[in-house]
Amino acid sequence: MMPEHVVLTEVGLRDGLQFEPRPLPTAKKLEAINLLIRAGVREIQVASFVNPKLVPQMADAEALCAGLPRKETVVFSGLVLNKKGLERALAGGLQEVEVSISASETHSRQNTGLSLQEAGQQARQMIASARRQNVRVKASIQCAFGCVSQGRIPEDLVLHMARDLIDSGAQTLSLADTTGMANPLAIKSLLESVHGQLPFVPVSLHLHDTRGLGLVNLYCGLEQGVSSFDTAFGGMGGCPFLPGAAGNIATEDTLNLLHGLHLSTGIRIDEIVNITTLMENFFQKRYPAKIRGTVS
Amino acid sequence: MMPEHVVLTEVGLRDGLQFEPRPLPTAKKLEAINLLIRAGVREIQVASFVNPKLVPQMADAEALCAGLPRKETVVFSGLVLNKKGLERALAGGLQEVEVSISASETHSRQNTGLSLQEAGQQARQMIASARRQNVRVKASIQCAFGCVSQGRIPEDLVLHMARDLIDSGAQTLSLADTTGMANPLAIKSLLESVHGQLPFVPVSLHLHDTRGLGLVNLYCGLEQGVSSFDTAFGGMGGCPFLPGAAGNIATEDTLNLLHGLHLSTGIRIDEIVNITTLMENFFQKRYPAKIRGTVS
Repeated sequence: MMPEHVVLTEVGLRDGLQFEPRPLPTAKKLEAINLLIRAGVREIQVASFVNPKLVPQMADAEALCAGLPRKETVVFSGLVLNKKGLERALAGGLQEVEVSISASETHSRQNTGLSLQEAGQQARQMIASARRQNVRVKASIQCAFGCVSQGRIPEDLVLHMARDLIDSGAQTLSLADTTGMANPLAIKSLLESVHGQLPFVPVSLHLHDTRGLGLVNLYCGLEQGVSSFDTAFGGMGGCPFLPGAAGNIATEDTLNLLHGLHLSTGIRIDEIVNITTLMENFFQKRYPAKIRGTVS
Repeated sequence: MMPEHVVLTEVGLRDGLQFEPRPLPTAKKLEAINLLIRAGVREIQVASFVNPKLVPQMADAEALCAGLPRKETVVFSGLVLNKKGLERALAGGLQEVEVSISASETHSRQNTGLSLQEAGQQARQMIASARRQNVRVKASIQCAFGCVSQGRIPEDLVLHMARDLIDSGAQTLSLADTTGMANPLAIKSLLESVHGQLPFVPVSLHLHDTRGLGLVNLYCGLEQGVSSFDTAFGGMGGCPFLPGAAGNIATEDTLNLLHGLHLSTGIRIDEIVNITTLMENFFQKRYPAKIRGTVS
């Protein structure tokens, strides 16, 4: 059941950087992107198109898009949460947008001011707009495995949202464990349901290591046949509701696991370690990744 | 195949404390032991009986044994690496000793000055001595999944050592991933071989999170039917060859995983979190455990 090849989408420049106290300069982001490409990464999320006043780390999204290298083998994507963001991402010429909504009513209202119903309606319209412009759409469901304020989210709700997003034209589906609430049983159960209801839809997992189960959950995803995951160099990122909590699963630690399982990724682990070192030098802190130069 | 109940052996007072720069006072150790018992822990490794000049953190092993509470439901054990250590542990009145040897020639010589052959011969004699005094023996094989200097260790060597230790009278076997080299394939392969060759011997795993795979490896152990693991509160400990590396798998993070899988342990996670907080306050540092008071 395990896949032979696994695709990692690097989200360090988006989900990682947005938790840092100061922006990484655009030139540094482009340097990291070029290093990621050299390391063999083929899917890179470069920014989220959100209000620059609220998330100044992402204020240079347009400038970044303008500076992206021309590489036909690499997919650059942007996260969009509303129509304004989608317009900006489309104007930036990205090949893929991730249209993201939350399965938690509380989280949705906190993050976007929209109810689940309003956010769902808006997402359908955004997906249709992007598809009309021939841009690939990944639909993602945040808090698919629970949220800090509401606990577990009913699986039926997530299934209903997934079907709705795919019916609206999204090509792939991402189930996001935004605050690290998932565990192996929840991963297995939701994936079996989603695969059962939407058998031809590629499903990826976006996992956080908030409670230390990030790689265990990834392993269970592999056992369910998932071959696509979001990761962030260094394990950058965090959780807006848990100060000091661990962030995304680390790209280099994930590679160490995948390569240990003899699954191919095309990505060089040592070059990812170097990117983490660059980030640590810039932000003057140590990120959670365990794999280091001396350890890999 | 997964067990319904899992036994955790708390090794924070041994494998955790031995990496700290200064000793924890005996009274504080006893306080932690009483808190562990209150939390529901039933197997506690209280010390290693090594040269107090080399490992001053363990110099109070005798005093600690003398102060242990009388609890018939709790097994206190000590780690022993040589005959002198065994004598001290037996004199201390412990119910169980862990006789430990390394599967790595280099690691064995660095740690004890003995070749594998010499260490094996000594271990056989130690096991016989302990058994003559009706003390339970757990035999453990360090570096069973590889070592930093030699890389992978041949599985046949580990199997041969395991059989030898069990034939000498050890009741249980512990496979230790001393420097965090294991991965799911290695766990599965070695456990299948050991279970095949020694089907009636209870096997436990001692896992380190050096490369971030501690809980993934534990999960794979569960999938192979293993129901006994060593853990340390806070994820204390380290790796003598990798400064700054992560230590043992954290008791609280392990409990979070096990309870999420609906496996019983009898241990209260919040009380373990409190013990980690005590240690963090004493040593003025933060340990790697992800589960915190606000997260559990």
